[in-house]
Amino acid sequence: MAGKFWMKYGLLACGVLLAGTAQADFPTVPKETFDALKIDRSASPKVLHDALLKRYMDPGQGAGKGKYGSYWEPLPISKYLDPNNFYKPPTSVKDIATREQCVKCHTDESPGWVALWKKSTHANLDKIRKLTPKDDTFYKKAKLAEIETNLRSLGKLGATEQLKEVGCIDCHVDINTKKKADHRADIKMPTADVCANCHLQEFAERESERDTITWPKGQWPKGRPSHALDYIANVEVEVYAGMSQREIADGCTMCHVQQNKCDGCHTRHEFSVANSRKPEACGTCHSGADHNNWESYTMSKHGKEYESKGKTWNWNLQLKDMIAKGGQDAPTCQSCHMEFQGKFTHNVVRKVRWANYPFVPGIRENIKTEWAEKRLDAWVKTCTSCHSERFARAYLEFMDNGTYSGLDKYDEAHDVVERQYKSGLLTGQKTSRPKPLAPSVSEGRGKMSMNAWVRTCTDCHTADRARDFLEIVDNGPSPMLDKELERYNDVHEVKGGPVGQMTPNRPKPPAPVPPGFEQFFQIYWSKGNNPAAIELRLFEMAEDHLVQLHVGLSHQHWGFTYTVGWAALNRGYVEIMDEDTKLKEKLALMERVAKLEGNKTSLLDLNGTDGKITLGSLGGGLLLTGGIALAGWSRRKKNNGR
Amino acid sequence: MAGKFWMKYGLLACGVLLAGTAQADFPTVPKETFDALKIDRSASPKVLHDALLKRYMDPGQGAGKGKYGSYWEPLPISKYLDPNNFYKPPTSVKDIATREQCVKCHTDESPGWVALWKKSTHANLDKIRKLTPKDDTFYKKAKLAEIETNLRSLGKLGATEQLKEVGCIDCHVDINTKKKADHRADIKMPTADVCANCHLQEFAERESERDTITWPKGQWPKGRPSHALDYIANVEVEVYAGMSQREIADGCTMCHVQQNKCDGCHTRHEFSVANSRKPEACGTCHSGADHNNWESYTMSKHGKEYESKGKTWNWNLQLKDMIAKGGQDAPTCQSCHMEFQGKFTHNVVRKVRWANYPFVPGIRENIKTEWAEKRLDAWVKTCTSCHSERFARAYLEFMDNGTYSGLDKYDEAHDVVERQYKSGLLTGQKTSRPKPLAPSVSEGRGKMSMNAWVRTCTDCHTADRARDFLEIVDNGPSPMLDKELERYNDVHEVKGGPVGQMTPNRPKPPAPVPPGFEQFFQIYWSKGNNPAAIELRLFEMAEDHLVQLHVGLSHQHWGFTYTVGWAALNRGYVEIMDEDTKLKEKLALMERVAKLEGNKTSLLDLNGTDGKITLGSLGGGLLLTGGIALAGWSRRKKNNGR
Amino acid sequence: MAGKFWMKYGLLACGVLLAGTAQADFPTVPKETFDALKIDRSASPKVLHDALLKRYMDPGQGAGKGKYGSYWEPLPISKYLDPNNFYKPPTSVKDIATREQCVKCHTDESPGWVALWKKSTHANLDKIRKLTPKDDTFYKKAKLAEIETNLRSLGKLGATEQLKEVGCIDCHVDINTKKKADHRADIKMPTADVCANCHLQEFAERESERDTITWPKGQWPKGRPSHALDYIANVEVEVYAGMSQREIADGCTMCHVQQNKCDGCHTRHEFSVANSRKPEACGTCHSGADHNNWESYTMSKHGKEYESKGKTWNWNLQLKDMIAKGGQDAPTCQSCHMEFQGKFTHNVVRKVRWANYPFVPGIRENIKTEWAEKRLDAWVKTCTSCHSERFARAYLEFMDNGTYSGLDKYDEAHDVVERQYKSGLLTGQKTSRPKPLAPSVSEGRGKMSMNAWVRTCTDCHTADRARDFLEIVDNGPSPMLDKELERYNDVHEVKGGPVGQMTPNRPKPPAPVPPGFEQFFQIYWSKGNNPAAIELRLFEMAEDHLVQLHVGLSHQHWGFTYTVGWAALNRGYVEIMDEDTKLKEKLALMERVAKLEGNKTSLLDLNGTDGKITLGSLGGGLLLTGGIALAGWSRRKKNNGR
Repeated sequence: MAGKFWMKYGLLACGVLLAGTAQADFPTVPKETFDALKIDRSASPKVLHDALLKRYMDPGQGAGKGKYGSYWEPLPISKYLDPNNFYKPPTSVKDIATREQCVKCHTDESPGWVALWKKSTHANLDKIRKLTPKDDTFYKKAKLAEIETNLRSLGKLGATEQLKEVGCIDCHVDINTKKKADHRADIKMPTADVCANCHLQEFAERESERDTITWPKGQWPKGRPSHALDYIANVEVEVYAGMSQREIADGCTMCHVQQNKCDGCHTRHEFSVANSRKPEACGTCHSGADHNNWESYTMSKHGKEYESKGKTWNWNLQLKDMIAKGGQDAPTCQSCHMEFQGKFTHNVVRKVRWANYPFVPGIRENIKTEWAEKRLDAWVKTCTSCHSERFARAYLEFMDNGTYSGLDKYDEAHDVVERQYKSGLLTGQKTSRPKPLAPSVSEGRGKMSMNAWVRTCTDCHTADRARDFLEIVDNGPSPMLDKELERYNDVHEVKGGPVGQMTPNRPKPPAPVPPGFEQFFQIYWSKGNNPAAIELRLFEMAEDHLVQLHVGLSHQHWGFTYTVGWAALNRGYVEIMDEDTKLKEKLALMERVAKLEGNKTSLLDLNGTDGKITLGSLGGGLLLTGGIALAGWSRRKKNNGR
Repeated sequence: MAGKFWMKYGLLACGVLLAGTAQADFPTVPKETFDALKIDRSASPKVLHDALLKRYMDPGQGAGKGKYGSYWEPLPISKYLDPNNFYKPPTSVKDIATREQCVKCHTDESPGWVALWKKSTHANLDKIRKLTPKDDTFYKKAKLAEIETNLRSLGKLGATEQLKEVGCIDCHVDINTKKKADHRADIKMPTADVCANCHLQEFAERESERDTITWPKGQWPKGRPSHALDYIANVEVEVYAGMSQREIADGCTMCHVQQNKCDGCHTRHEFSVANSRKPEACGTCHSGADHNNWESYTMSKHGKEYESKGKTWNWNLQLKDMIAKGGQDAPTCQSCHMEFQGKFTHNVVRKVRWANYPFVPGIRENIKTEWAEKRLDAWVKTCTSCHSERFARAYLEFMDNGTYSGLDKYDEAHDVVERQYKSGLLTGQKTSRPKPLAPSVSEGRGKMSMNAWVRTCTDCHTADRARDFLEIVDNGPSPMLDKELERYNDVHEVKGGPVGQMTPNRPKPPAPVPPGFEQFFQIYWSKGNNPAAIELRLFEMAEDHLVQLHVGLSHQHWGFTYTVGWAALNRGYVEIMDEDTKLKEKLALMERVAKLEGNKTSLLDLNGTDGKITLGSLGGGLLLTGGIALAGWSRRKKNNGR
Repeated sequence: MAGKFWMKYGLLACGVLLAGTAQADFPTVPKETFDALKIDRSASPKVLHDALLKRYMDPGQGAGKGKYGSYWEPLPISKYLDPNNFYKPPTSVKDIATREQCVKCHTDESPGWVALWKKSTHANLDKIRKLTPKDDTFYKKAKLAEIETNLRSLGKLGATEQLKEVGCIDCHVDINTKKKADHRADIKMPTADVCANCHLQEFAERESERDTITWPKGQWPKGRPSHALDYIANVEVEVYAGMSQREIADGCTMCHVQQNKCDGCHTRHEFSVANSRKPEACGTCHSGADHNNWESYTMSKHGKEYESKGKTWNWNLQLKDMIAKGGQDAPTCQSCHMEFQGKFTHNVVRKVRWANYPFVPGIRENIKTEWAEKRLDAWVKTCTSCHSERFARAYLEFMDNGTYSGLDKYDEAHDVVERQYKSGLLTGQKTSRPKPLAPSVSEGRGKMSMNAWVRTCTDCHTADRARDFLEIVDNGPSPMLDKELERYNDVHEVKGGPVGQMTPNRPKPPAPVPPGFEQFFQIYWSKGNNPAAIELRLFEMAEDHLVQLHVGLSHQHWGFTYTVGWAALNRGYVEIMDEDTKLKEKLALMERVAKLEGNKTSLLDLNGTDGKITLGSLGGGLLLTGGIALAGWSRRKKNNGR
């Protein structure tokens, strides 16, 4: 009895002591991060948490709407995507509830939430406390102790108090709160920093991505691409900010929220860590036209082994133990990408070399540098879990060289289309190439389509009335327009302005996207002949097919030659060359017609453009047999480094 | 002993009584159906069954070959697709077999059938009778009792008789028959009405789809789209009836047979209800270019949760219990689409709003009506199983608005192509646009290709002989053709006619498809320049990419922006705009050539067409720099409601 | 005791006797193979093994680099793809290790290998010896006895010796070796013949593919397509040998190595036979644009049944028992393709009829021959495991006819494009159609791209220096080039030659690919306008869409009509017809311009080309309404058998 008494109070004292002197020295968090935060490894959890939080919340360091933030407004769904900026508690629910009442009421209101939570570790902390070394998840016992240390350091848990559970109220109001929750005042959508109250190590690991990817020549901004800064990476894309189709723009945001939230991988409300170890946790986002990781993995031998046998692996084990003890037969996304030098963490960027997009300027030139070679060596170490070093190096060389081949093929096509652009010869380039995302609100009805306006106007007017009015606007300045605008200004909130300014919620002038050739925005936004078909074709070679080639190569999906990737690049090249020849033939015919019309000097002898065109004298017969002998496009422009 | 005697006979008497007064009052069958059938909820199973059967078998209400039925003949495979119309018992099997002999012989003849059946509930009714409330499938005990009530009402089961099993003979000859089966006379392929002998409730639920989807402005025919009328929906498509490539046409039929059969979802011969609760039961059909439901679901978080954990859910439970008791973590097709106001039934159309095809005329205008708002509210209720109402409404608004954006983008492209069509300027429109599916049998060798004819002729002739003859036919009227036709008519069944009529099995004149612009048949049938490439491109924007956008949005597949859907719509738009500018440039050049040829009046100043073209005076220099300053296409046509 | 003594030595004696008289009479190995090897069924395992090995290793019968072998050099990865030709033991590892030391050291060096091996049967032969008839894998006991018989016949196992295990050293050095392994001298990568030491039956079955597919009219070379000759089939493709992008070329090789290795299906290092019975074992290779078997199967009812329930089937059973005893609900790749006349073997070609590529000359004409009918009958037998014969025949007819429809559609498009080609009218055909894979090393900088050269040169020079030099080369003969080449030749290994010969590792002149129309190489290699866009489009109709149609049909993937296959063929046809009409219109306009220029005779009245063009007199009005009345292309060419 006395012994037990001693143990109890001794441990208690110990707990207090530990809390007082707790250090957040997580070996998996790299030095770079402690340096960047200007704190010491011996800092307490609270100090680390506060330092991370300050940076995390700082708009100057990537939080929030970004530099184009004034150009767009959140949608109703946005409150769930960036809660720190857009979430407001619900005004329609008046209940003020205890911890237990939350669960009780939501068992009826949203049974799925509660059913999942009841299966979770969050709802069963006692089970964790009872684990023995024989249990697969025994490691969670130490994790729980660590979490309680964190909470004590943060002042959220008493020195001798045990965390009872993690329920609705703990994440949606405050961890371990004893108060009631007022829906209209207290409810919040948890962001990553909320998870970090307990899971500080994992948050610190994830946040360390900001510090461990710094590109030698600024190919990408510091700390990117990464999960830690994926939201800012999204909202600072010009076309994101400038598109009037907000839901389409937010199609990208749907994945680009890992910066803000943890439940992209740790699916609510069970938050099963076993489940987040499976490739499916990554597949929802890492899939599709320009990041076909899921498709490539699942079609590889690795992925097929997972599909075939993965259900029998012991997912309760930590990643580090799954091959030796869990029956893991083949790599998963997690076992390769979360590993670095034999350790597994939430920093997935330390081995990045190609960064998924080989065409990004400076990327290919960087592959043979010391910076990239170190990262290659780290990859080799990863592969040697299951392959010889010789095999790994042979394959990685194969991957790199295959990617170079794709780049070279793309380059050839690029030069041809760029020459057309520099000569002003893209379809409609001189006549029908609206400025990209131009601030057109002061010009007619703005960039919203007729139908979008009709839907807006029919809140108050008939559709016919709306269309009549908008057609008058479209027809441009006229006495009738003046009259209509007078009436319009009398009754609408915003006076004196053209129709584009008529609704309070009208989109602001969009972000200025500089005019130019082969731009990213063109795969989401188009108007008239911006982009030209051949230009978009070219960009898709870079953005989609080249990526698919590289990702296929890097994930051992053999379709990279004949299904995605190379065959598609080849097709793009062929179509571009075909269009180019046809264009030259058309120009030659136009030249002949111009001569017949009496133009003395060749109209194609244009000077002053960058890509000067010289059409030699052409025989009609040649033309009629299907081709022309163009003297060739000048190639004297400076090679642009490709 | 006496007690037991009483119980036995008491129950028997009870059974008789129940059979006599049995009501088919299935709460899950909506009022609309009882009204439509003009029967009362208190009607007996037999009355309900007979009323449903009468409608089900009525060619005037959707049974059979449909209004174009005279234009096509069934294939050998068709007997399995529409057994009621095309199935005949096999003539080659002479066995007359008892219930037991069926099983015995087919254990050798087709072991898969028997092995699956032996696993089925049908083969193990005794197991059902022994279930206790502790068993997952205890609910089946009541279901069996209900089924026996149905059979008694139909006179298929004695008042005190228990159903022993459901074997080969029960479905392929007659339920609970005591007779032997003569293969050549008695064998039938079970259709939905056969299943309905026992599963009356489920059949009635399914048939209620006819009654619960009635479109405010006839956007779709009454009761469609639905499983209940999916066969008639297929065979009444003009291109289905008119295509000579019957196997291609029946590619659609392969799925469009749910009206006729139940084993599309309830896979024969195990008919496992647990299995039919899984998304795979839907995926075979609900997938592909213009109904990418499977692809979207499996790439969503919902689908990935299913892939990741679904194998651990308890599929033996009824849908209503799977979240609370079965560990279901994420929705399935079934848990959302079979649910309505908290109940699960075989009617899946009561929440339909967009009906998969946003471009169908009248659909988008209908979304904000009261009709659709009620259905939206029903969806919100569905989502609140696992989400807050606020979240659900925000997302559904997101989905609707994203779909509108796609429609607007499509509209712009549509207007451009339609203007070309109205001006007669589509490629080959005036010279090489054969009437769609024209009855060409009287013109030369008909619509069958050379090779198809050669295969036909080589039943009797050499291929060389056949080709020589057919080339003569192709070369048109000539003395040699006359001579050949004379010989031909002497020896072939059909006299006096051209070669197109020479075989008894020649296809009948196909269904008349009215000529017109951007029609459905063009994605399956083409000839010469019908359709023009730009026209097909446009239609694919509507039929494929717009649908993929909408289905992606509605199933939370984030690829809707950059992989399927929007990016593809953008691409289509860009290509169409490019072609349009090129066309205008070509017309301008032709105008210049015409002037040089001495034509005084501008040939492009055409009046009388809807989309009048006006080419202003064009400077040669402008042309040579790659564009022309067209004065613009007239936009004075009435806005068509888009 | 005496009894046991007798048993032991009796069995031993028996073993010796059996080894002495062992016959390799595997009933599953067809007569054709014994005939081809000129050995008797009663031959010993050693005789069979030696005969098979001799053929397997014979370059004259398909081993090695093939007839274009001098044109390409292996990559570092090639040593793993064709070990018999390219593998050399590692020089960097100096260890000389015992059987036990291999395992011990590699537990650290490559833990995945060892972990997988420890799960394998190879590592647990004792478990096999203890199996009883009640065990699912009891059949393995006899298999092990057979293997030991083989080894004894080969002199690899003592007459009374039992095989203890199959460890690293057994496959990577020599089976049952007692020696130490010197990494630098002894290590080998096991090829199929190594596996055949033990698994002789399976190897013989696989090798029998060479003997059981002989095409009536040489449509394919003898024994192909097959796993047994898939490597030679790959390396003897001209474009494989001729491409400078070696990694892209070897994208095909990644699958085309089944001839060389067994671990394509029997995944190393567990070599689980249960796992190789699953469709995933096939899917890695049998998928993609032109062999979409995986995609079609998984989207079929069969595949969806597998996805839904397959995890519950008993995969430990042999294929023959899986339906009756293993709960198999639906066919897998293996259960259909490895079956022949009720038996399952590693010969998968005996039912081949269409051979995946319907457009290969002579294939379609062969379908109705006796040769193919026998194979059809064998398929019908396969299907009757689960379907009636009538159903099977109806479906197979459906499949064949659907494929014919695709062929006919393709033919129409083919004729149009071929006519352009014969008239010399493909885009750039007369002006920009480089010879395919021409030996261009002596012409300028060769076929390597500028960037590829820059990367090569920057081993010694700056990129700027390299580019300056290469631009001089590109600009063609000049005094500056002479001077540069002089300096170049002074310092580079290869003297006197142009820049294309400057590096020792430069690619050899590529294999001569004859110029021609619509060739296979065009989907991987292109230059200028070879191929023309329309030509590639056409070839993709044949190589991709026609295959997808056929494979969809043959695997019951209903998307063959509207997603892959037919709809894509229709699209290709429409685009080709559109381009053809545009071309004719362009030619007509050019004719008018030529007339204006004073050309008296019509330049389109060209004689001497195969596809003679005759343009009648064209009215300008006609042209301006969007079309022209071409008098038509001559169709007098001989029909080419399609």
